[in-house]
This record gives sequence, C-alpha cells and structure tokens, in this order.
Amino acid sequence: MAGASFGTRLAAAIRSSGTPLCMGIDPHPGMVPALFGNSTEPGHPDTIRAISDFTMACLAAAKGRVAAIKPQAAFFEAQGPDGMRVLAELGRSAVDAGMLVIMDAKRNDIGSTNAAYAEAWIGHDAPFPSDALTVNAFLGLDTLEPLLARADAVGAGLFVLTRTSNPGAGDLQDLDVGGKPLFHRLAEQLAPLATARCDNEGHSSLGIVAGATWPDEARALRAILPSAPFLVPGFGAQGGAAADALAGLTRDGDGWQNGLINSTRGLIFPKAAHDAGDIASWRAAIDEAITASRAALAAV
Amino acid sequence: MAGASFGTRLAAAIRSSGTPLCMGIDPHPGMVPALFGNSTEPGHPDTIRAISDFTMACLAAAKGRVAAIKPQAAFFEAQGPDGMRVLAELGRSAVDAGMLVIMDAKRNDIGSTNAAYAEAWIGHDAPFPSDALTVNAFLGLDTLEPLLARADAVGAGLFVLTRTSNPGAGDLQDLDVGGKPLFHRLAEQLAPLATARCDNEGHSSLGIVAGATWPDEARALRAILPSAPFLVPGFGAQGGAAADALAGLTRDGDGWQNGLINSTRGLIFPKAAHDAGDIASWRAAIDEAITASRAALAAV
Repeated sequence: MAGASFGTRLAAAIRSSGTPLCMGIDPHPGMVPALFGNSTEPGHPDTIRAISDFTMACLAAAKGRVAAIKPQAAFFEAQGPDGMRVLAELGRSAVDAGMLVIMDAKRNDIGSTNAAYAEAWIGHDAPFPSDALTVNAFLGLDTLEPLLARADAVGAGLFVLTRTSNPGAGDLQDLDVGGKPLFHRLAEQLAPLATARCDNEGHSSLGIVAGATWPDEARALRAILPSAPFLVPGFGAQGGAAADALAGLTRDGDGWQNGLINSTRGLIFPKAAHDAGDIASWRAAIDEAITASRAALAAV
Repeated sequence: MAGASFGTRLAAAIRSSGTPLCMGIDPHPGMVPALFGNSTEPGHPDTIRAISDFTMACLAAAKGRVAAIKPQAAFFEAQGPDGMRVLAELGRSAVDAGMLVIMDAKRNDIGSTNAAYAEAWIGHDAPFPSDALTVNAFLGLDTLEPLLARADAVGAGLFVLTRTSNPGAGDLQDLDVGGKPLFHRLAEQLAPLATARCDNEGHSSLGIVAGATWPDEARALRAILPSAPFLVPGFGAQGGAAADALAGLTRDGDGWQNGLINSTRGLIFPKAAHDAGDIASWRAAIDEAITASRAALAAV
C-alpha cells in the first residue's frame, strides 16, 4: 500500500485483521518468561538476547491477529544502545511483514530538534522504522510542524498526547481554560490539522492519544476531532473495559474504525504464558489472550 | 563529590568553572565541520565517527570552561543505535572527567514506563549517564514520581519543562487558568517538590526549563520556585541576550547561582570554527566562543 496515507492504511489494517486491537510491546526484563532467558542485568548480552527473542516472538504472534503493534521505547532505552538496536530491528521486521508499527516514544522538543526526532522515528526508512509516532505537544503547536512535514512526506501518522489514562492525568490536562478543560483546547487546536490530513473516507493521519479510563472524555474528543484516529491505552491491565475503550471510536459497516485499542500486559504477559515450558505453549497462551481481547471488543 | 545532591554539585560546578554557562551539544551532521568528516548519511560508519570525534572534541573544549554540558538526544537518535552508543560514550566520558551532564531528552510517559526511562537516563551508572535529565510533566505530576525516586536515590536532578523558548510556546503554556497562565500553575505544583529537595544552601535538585526569550516570566517563576535551578535555553542563537538569560537566576557573593545558561550553536558551531583546517585552530575558535559567552554573562 505504498503511497496510501497512514489514515487509509490504518483503516485497511483494522478491516483486514478484523479488530482495532493493538498489541503493546513493553519488554520489562523482570516480566519476560524464563523460556526466553533469565538475565535482567541491563545491557547484558543475555538480557539483550532475551528481549530480542521475546519481542520478535510477540511480533510473530501479532501478525494477522491485531491491527498494529506499539513498541514502548522506554524499555528498549533502559537496555542502552544494544536495546535500541533490538527496537530498530523489531520495527524493521514488522514493517517488512506488513504490520503497522506505532512507535510509542512520546517525543517532543522545539522545532529544529523535532526535525531530528522526525528523522529518527517517522516512516519505514527511519532508523527506528514506524508507521506512526506518539508525540507530546506541550511545547506548542509550532513544534509539531517538522514532525507533520516528515509524516506527510512519507505517508506516516502522529498521535498527539491529549488525554492520558494515568491517575494524575488531570493535573494539567483538566485545568479549566475559559470553561473548558485544557485537553479540549488542545484538541481544538489540533482539529484543523487533522482535517487537513483526512482522506476521502474520513480517516485522518493525525490522531490523538485518548485514555480508556475516560469514556465520556473520549466521546467529547470525538465530537471535536471527527476524523482523527484515537490511540486508546489502558484497555485491560490499566482497568479500562471494552465498552469504555471503544467510546471514542466510530462504527461503519465493517466494524470499529478510526482508532486503536491498545493492550500490553493482557496480551504479552498473560498468566498462562509466564510459566510456559516451550515456545509452542507460550505461543498458544498468547493466541488465547489475543482471541479473548478480540472477542471482548467484538462483543460491544 | 559522591553523596552530594545534584543541587549542591551544580552550585559547586558554577563556582569552580566561574560561570553558569552550559554547552549544548547538538551534532547536526550537516553542521559538523569538514575537519571531522564529510558524511551526513544517517547511521553510516563515517557519520558516526564524525559525530563521535566532534562531540568528544566539544567535551574536551568544555572541561573547566563551562559549568555543564547538555547533549541533545534527538541528534544522536537520528543516527540510530550507533548514534545512541556515541551518546552513551559521551555521557560516560563526561562523568568520568567530573563534568556535569544534563541529558536533554525531554522524556515523559505514565509512571511504570517512566521508571524505565529513569533507569535509562538518570545517574552516573545509567546506560546513558547523566547528572540530570530534562522531562515533560504534561501527563501529570504523578508521572514524575518514578523519575524523582531514581534521581533522589542516586543524587541526580530533573529539569521539568515549564516555559520554553520557541515562538509557539504559549499555545498551551500561556493559556489562562483562573487568572494565571498554565505555566504558573505547573510551577506552583512543582514548588513543594522542589522545596523538599533543597540543600542547606538553598539549592534544590528539582529544576525547571525556563526559556531565555521570556525574562519577565523567568522572574515570575523564580518567585514561585526560590530554590529550583533554572535551565535556560535560547541564549545566543535563539535570540536571548545575556541580561534576559540571567533574569531568573540569583546572585550570591560568588556570582550567579541556581541555574544554567545554555548556548549551543554559539559555542559549538561558531563561524570561525566551521572552516578550521586542523584541530588546533578549531579548538582555538571554540575557546574564543566560550570566552566571549562567559564574558557576556559576567558583564551583566
């Protein structure tokens, strides 16, 4: 689908996989099953090998069963430069396999520096290959320009942090700005940028992060941003139920659209997979977890 | 000075170097002098070597002449995993040389993920060694907890983005929240955390980023945060004059305190250094640029 925008490719991925489910890939060394190795020493070759084998196995399990994967940069960075190499290779393998990759790196800086982050993280040819990148706009909308320019040039997308799923999310995001919470004001500033990146079917390449623990807020954000894809963290382990997680998505004849529902621990660290004695039984446990999450979303 | 807090070590570094000047190290491949190599292809071994040689030469020029260095992670990330290795080695060399290192990575995520960023970036023993890290608090004050916990444990510091120096900084930071701009509200939320991390001489280990282009705002922030070190970007190339850059710092008998005035392009890319034919003349040009910036700050 070279040439298609991120919004169009995301819609196609949701249709072909049959779900808006996204697999978060956060390789906590202490949570990787013993099957993949026991080393938790940061940067040690055994730890690097365990994280590489584990995350590549997650990717293999994800293919065709979820709409996208979302590697979390922090856990790779915590392993130092060799961990970053694992992340680069994971992204490359996923892109080569035709899997959508959302790099969850939440990058942000002023414009000239964001141009360097854009080179690092946006597009299939970046050192850390992706279809879309999560970014933080606290420094101002002008800081998004080099990120959007790169994304537009290579058919990639962005997800701007707007309302997150953590307990303290409201400390700044909910502050009242002239009768509306700050995150509404941010969404309003993003709206024309999202509309300008909307394809003929109503799918924009500029999206937002909208936490699953706040369904009313997701619906309010959808009213402001009709075409923006929502990346919804917090489904599963963070406590968001399926109906809440889907609150901000839209439905068409083929099912849910305009968003990804991310699950991390529920998909890559299910209890049954933790003590698996071999790769086949680990894979069966992951498959079962994916099936259960797909079903929970499909039942809404 | 093992055991001393970041606030105390920063004060000592300003005293011993005789200036609050900080050298930003942003290796734009296209701006690195030909002396260090001509390759700009991302991740190419020749580019990696040029960036490694250039940034290590910047560190050598900085020793004893500035209070700290501030490598910008984005430019190393743009070179992929090998670029991240250069950043790790630069941080290690600086720490071993007794130079304060502010890692400018502006990391942010929810708590459990910020714990991984803390492991990656905070402290002398981190894979990317530092004395302090720049962070973004838009996701909420709770997200700072694992970062502060790590910083407290290893005697490191944080600089929280509060008022940046870019033209669009006010898009969110200046929004009126009950009669005060958002960045004041953030500073008020940070105040008790900064006070709790203050040594006997009034130097906290929790600081903020406060742009040099906004001196009145820096003074207002100082009133809210009397003991927090201010990291002031934008001196020099971004247009901030010396008096404006120093607006938020305090003065004691020994000179300016409680902040770092960062200059990047003015110090590492002065015109005279660009066409230097050998390392000695490059180094002389950098020395001259440092001397001029030190003098401009000392004259205020």
